[in-house]
Amino acid sequence: MEHLEYQEGRTELAAFGEFPLIERLTDGFVPKNKSTRLGVGDDAAVLGTGKVKTLVTGDMLVEGVNFDMMYTPLRHLGYKAVAINLSDIAAMNGLPRQVLVNVAVSNRYSVEALEELYAGIRLCCDRYDVDLVGGDLATSRAGMVLSVTAIGEADEDAITYRSGARMHDLICVSGDLGSAYSGLLVLEREKVTYQANPDFKPDLDGYDYVLERFLKPEPRLDIVKLLKEKGIVPTSMIDVSDGLASELLHICKQSNCGCEIYEERLPIDYQTTRVCSEMSNNMLPVSNALNGGEDYELLFTIKQQDYEKIKDCDEVHIIGHITEAGSPAVMVTPQNTTIQLRAQGWQCNE
Amino acid sequence: MEHLEYQEGRTELAAFGEFPLIERLTDGFVPKNKSTRLGVGDDAAVLGTGKVKTLVTGDMLVEGVNFDMMYTPLRHLGYKAVAINLSDIAAMNGLPRQVLVNVAVSNRYSVEALEELYAGIRLCCDRYDVDLVGGDLATSRAGMVLSVTAIGEADEDAITYRSGARMHDLICVSGDLGSAYSGLLVLEREKVTYQANPDFKPDLDGYDYVLERFLKPEPRLDIVKLLKEKGIVPTSMIDVSDGLASELLHICKQSNCGCEIYEERLPIDYQTTRVCSEMSNNMLPVSNALNGGEDYELLFTIKQQDYEKIKDCDEVHIIGHITEAGSPAVMVTPQNTTIQLRAQGWQCNE
Repeated sequence: MEHLEYQEGRTELAAFGEFPLIERLTDGFVPKNKSTRLGVGDDAAVLGTGKVKTLVTGDMLVEGVNFDMMYTPLRHLGYKAVAINLSDIAAMNGLPRQVLVNVAVSNRYSVEALEELYAGIRLCCDRYDVDLVGGDLATSRAGMVLSVTAIGEADEDAITYRSGARMHDLICVSGDLGSAYSGLLVLEREKVTYQANPDFKPDLDGYDYVLERFLKPEPRLDIVKLLKEKGIVPTSMIDVSDGLASELLHICKQSNCGCEIYEERLPIDYQTTRVCSEMSNNMLPVSNALNGGEDYELLFTIKQQDYEKIKDCDEVHIIGHITEAGSPAVMVTPQNTTIQLRAQGWQCNE
Repeated sequence: MEHLEYQEGRTELAAFGEFPLIERLTDGFVPKNKSTRLGVGDDAAVLGTGKVKTLVTGDMLVEGVNFDMMYTPLRHLGYKAVAINLSDIAAMNGLPRQVLVNVAVSNRYSVEALEELYAGIRLCCDRYDVDLVGGDLATSRAGMVLSVTAIGEADEDAITYRSGARMHDLICVSGDLGSAYSGLLVLEREKVTYQANPDFKPDLDGYDYVLERFLKPEPRLDIVKLLKEKGIVPTSMIDVSDGLASELLHICKQSNCGCEIYEERLPIDYQTTRVCSEMSNNMLPVSNALNGGEDYELLFTIKQQDYEKIKDCDEVHIIGHITEAGSPAVMVTPQNTTIQLRAQGWQCNE
């Protein structure tokens, strides 16, 4: 009998990022079933032998790491836990059909608290015509952990991977970027003030959009439907969960290409700009857009010939183009300087 | 801004059991998609519109609640986390094809520790021809949380629910019962001794079978294959995760029937009997068999006419029969007294 944490030759988790570590741990798992079309490495796995494929994806949310109960209403949390998984199905150009929700809670939570959580889960399921088909309820020693699996479907011909971007393809993004992170910045600011003075009444007027973006994101299934209507199958797609820069680098790596985006083309809401201007460290809105994360917008590439079909869609912004293999991933500023993109990911809340 | 735990009108989670609480929380979720054939309420959800259905199930394991790192090798933990989910697919009379594994860990764990965990995951995947197709790696504040989703398939005609048992059906169980719990009792005993005296070397000789049953359970996919070979489709089935009594009550409730099992028919290994005899509280082996839990054997009912097909299978034991609606679930002792079954579930490790 012994304590099974390894003391000798110990490598700290911090020595790896999340993605290199997942790659290392899952390296050598070779699919054996003919129904496994794609395993680890994209927004969702692709399963099935027929023309319509099943898409499966899962995400875990940990209290104190991925959400702070200080300012996260449980109803919003339930909604968000489902929504971000539906976003991964959307990122494969698919439509979600079912979710399973596993919840671990400590006895700090009441039955009424769980009912609030499930009310949010139900709201998101109802809104996106998704069925809750299972889940486990476990006891935790500390706080709440949510693990959601989403199942969706897509025609084989429509499924969009991270690996399909080709030189000259146009880079598109839906909605706007950086607003969710701006919402988090506001909440963190108010939390600090409240902790210093519990009589303080936070004033959240004028921040409604960025707060909703953070607390209750929406999966862009409307974009999946729009693309279908317009007859466009993107060449690659990913959802923006860790920030635009990180996601662009995923696409470039998996498609073996570079990219060039234009700073002035990045869609940024005025509330995002306002929040940035209020921060003491002179935060630039473009930095939020590149690195903020949790926007759950769709980032995708299309062939140049599809430009005419999409150019008038208000919710889609063309922000750049794909460059050849070996080129870097860069952003061109209005002053025509070039900045290499780096994945800073999503670090504020950890 | 406020702390969002509800203080007024608070109902403690302990006021509900797990299953009534899940029922309460998921009540009113009505499936909307035609591909959702069965949602919450069985070992797995049943999805798809074709003849071959997709089965999906998920489970969560929390450190300090569902497993104790003091005596759980990480390789075994990875194996078990996958195995118990494959068992839920087996309980639908299906075969597993893929798993997704979400892991949350604190920085107490090293990269090498995670590699051990994944080595166990891989071992179980390889043994049962299952593909690892996804998963999330999250940060936890305390300990490890595992959440596994298993995906399987079964012909529509072969899928076995908890609700199909009918009067006079024979009740069968695979393997033996109570051995996993006996393994846990041994580990808990040695842990207490070790904590009192860290120089103590635990002597686990002669307990190998019960220890393996607890630390490294096997899903009974061999029984699913055997039933197919013999041309038997069970009328109902469930896997024994919370103890025979609890599972029988699930079948009786969902099939609207009673049952009668015979104490002398319960399959109990000699190591289970030995462990019970060593316990100071005069534990009865039959009590372990009824309430121990974590055996991951299959409990199923078959039509009487299938008796000849199965009577010579060593791994299947006929322990009783189904009685009419309104009858209780009972065990008949060798002295011919009748004991009503109650769900004590699985409480030791919580």
